[in-house]
Amino acid sequence: MHTVDVSLGERSYAIEIGAGLESAGERIQGLGLGRKLALVTNPTVKELYAQRVSESLKAAGFQVMSIIVPDGEQHKTLDWANSIYTALLINNFDRKSPLVALGGGVIGDLTGFAAATFMRGVPFVQIPTTLLAMVDSSVGGKTGVNHPMGKNMIGAFYQPKKVLMDLSVLKSLPREELLSGMAEVIKYGIIRDPALFDYLEANREKILSLDNDALGFVVRRSCEIKADVVMQDEREAGLRAILNFGHTVGHAIETAENYTLRHGYAVAIGMVYAARLAHRMGLCDALVPERVERIVSSYGLPTGFSALGRRPSTTELMDTMQVDKKAESGKVKFVLPKRIGDVAVTPEWEEQALRDLLTA
Amino acid sequence: MHTVDVSLGERSYAIEIGAGLESAGERIQGLGLGRKLALVTNPTVKELYAQRVSESLKAAGFQVMSIIVPDGEQHKTLDWANSIYTALLINNFDRKSPLVALGGGVIGDLTGFAAATFMRGVPFVQIPTTLLAMVDSSVGGKTGVNHPMGKNMIGAFYQPKKVLMDLSVLKSLPREELLSGMAEVIKYGIIRDPALFDYLEANREKILSLDNDALGFVVRRSCEIKADVVMQDEREAGLRAILNFGHTVGHAIETAENYTLRHGYAVAIGMVYAARLAHRMGLCDALVPERVERIVSSYGLPTGFSALGRRPSTTELMDTMQVDKKAESGKVKFVLPKRIGDVAVTPEWEEQALRDLLTA
Repeated sequence: MHTVDVSLGERSYAIEIGAGLESAGERIQGLGLGRKLALVTNPTVKELYAQRVSESLKAAGFQVMSIIVPDGEQHKTLDWANSIYTALLINNFDRKSPLVALGGGVIGDLTGFAAATFMRGVPFVQIPTTLLAMVDSSVGGKTGVNHPMGKNMIGAFYQPKKVLMDLSVLKSLPREELLSGMAEVIKYGIIRDPALFDYLEANREKILSLDNDALGFVVRRSCEIKADVVMQDEREAGLRAILNFGHTVGHAIETAENYTLRHGYAVAIGMVYAARLAHRMGLCDALVPERVERIVSSYGLPTGFSALGRRPSTTELMDTMQVDKKAESGKVKFVLPKRIGDVAVTPEWEEQALRDLLTA
Repeated sequence: MHTVDVSLGERSYAIEIGAGLESAGERIQGLGLGRKLALVTNPTVKELYAQRVSESLKAAGFQVMSIIVPDGEQHKTLDWANSIYTALLINNFDRKSPLVALGGGVIGDLTGFAAATFMRGVPFVQIPTTLLAMVDSSVGGKTGVNHPMGKNMIGAFYQPKKVLMDLSVLKSLPREELLSGMAEVIKYGIIRDPALFDYLEANREKILSLDNDALGFVVRRSCEIKADVVMQDEREAGLRAILNFGHTVGHAIETAENYTLRHGYAVAIGMVYAARLAHRMGLCDALVPERVERIVSSYGLPTGFSALGRRPSTTELMDTMQVDKKAESGKVKFVLPKRIGDVAVTPEWEEQALRDLLTA
């Protein structure tokens, strides 16, 4: 088992990668949690893993209440957060009672937001069951729900007490979900780690066949990079913005598609456009967008709109970017690669160039 | 003008007591706030003060959007928080755009919660217009909304960038609202400052006739005491619990009365019962409940249930206390006076003694 430490003073915690779900209970003992515990999950994950986790928690002395949220991003809402509060209140949960999120990003973000805001904050544990949640959403303390006018518009920075990752659960993950997670892994290579990028180019088959060592390496390296960035800038005052590489165009596409497109697929397209924009602006040489497009494509991810079956209107995409959380005083900051492994964050980007690229 | 500094590292801020509303704009310049600003208030306060504040903000270069929330605790809800998010999104607010709360505790708590959770946190300024908000809810960073099953059950710890208090606004405050605020001032004397308690006994007439010096002194002293406690224990891990003196029974009464009773009135009754319970348990001598009851009564506040017109059932009150946020593992911690100026926080209190007192 590998442990990645996220050092944030009194909000520090450990990400434990590799141990089985069966040890979940014992691994959260000693964190000073209340005995009454809510396990939040969705019907699909419940069917596969809830019993193993629940038994482990009970064996460790916890009283387990399950809260089942329907599958899908459309349930990451304030209404569902409110349903969680109600369930906790009906069952007399108190300030020490932990919420455990067992699932992907939707379950993690929603449960984290409920934990951040129930009684002004109760303990929170993440057990991510998708690659995307492991390498991205479960690390760094961003929690939140969607508003009809935009993704993740309501939320809080709130760190978990621990993150537990059992890589074997990825075996049950649909192929598309695995690829969606790989988009974020590729992102880490582009923004911060040329060696990881090279590794991804060289070990595609191993990774996609879920070779334990290869998978363990990319998950650990991704968590390390994200944790390192978050430790330097927990609340996104500066550096953390680099994690949004591919997300400005990506979120706009997700909004245009009404969140029916997988997050990683949208980010994949967003990374390709960001790399092209960087090249168009003279920030990087032509090899950068070429390598980005090639690796995205080699992992079975979309590089453009043909995968969507339709092309969202450029105006719609540009407008959505304006209300992106990353906008400040109406100005969107774009994350643009200078080379593989290094990016710039800038409000100075060529809007017309992006319009042209999106329309082309 | 007096300034009380709340030192909380990067979350530090100043409480400015005494300057006029007309200077609001210039006093929040230099805080690095965005130009687009939302002024959240209610119809009553809007009528009286919104224009003065708004003009001051505009003169300081802010673009002001007003958000009007109907009067009353029944609007301190997740639904109203959502209405605020929607207004902000429609108007393209971003992460730097400040929310300014102009009003009492309801406006402050609701606006603070919206600020804490919109885009995971935007800047927040408090301009309290009630005595209760000045001495209590605007200081210390507790924000939140009510859930049908309990008061303030949904919320966050979130500090403002600045708190501005113009004491002259208290002239328009209904007498009952002024008295309600005085309950919290009395509380500070009992939990922390015998000299303040003596001052309140000796200067009742001056204070209630809004003598500027007397009022300025009690507001400043209250803010200092609260700030001192919050600086030692921002997130209520220990010491901060002393601020809940009178609130355990008080919140139960508010819930039983469906939030139709003024907060300070409920706290006043709660303080009297807490003092009686402390005496019954042998924690303090008989003079403590006598002095508490006498000062509460002398400020025109209720000391028991006769003021309510009805007596809530003891069982109902005891049950509500069980789901109080301050409960841990089903055990409510009670704040009990040892003498005027000093309290103990204990989960060990005599339930039957409280039942007897509440039923008597």
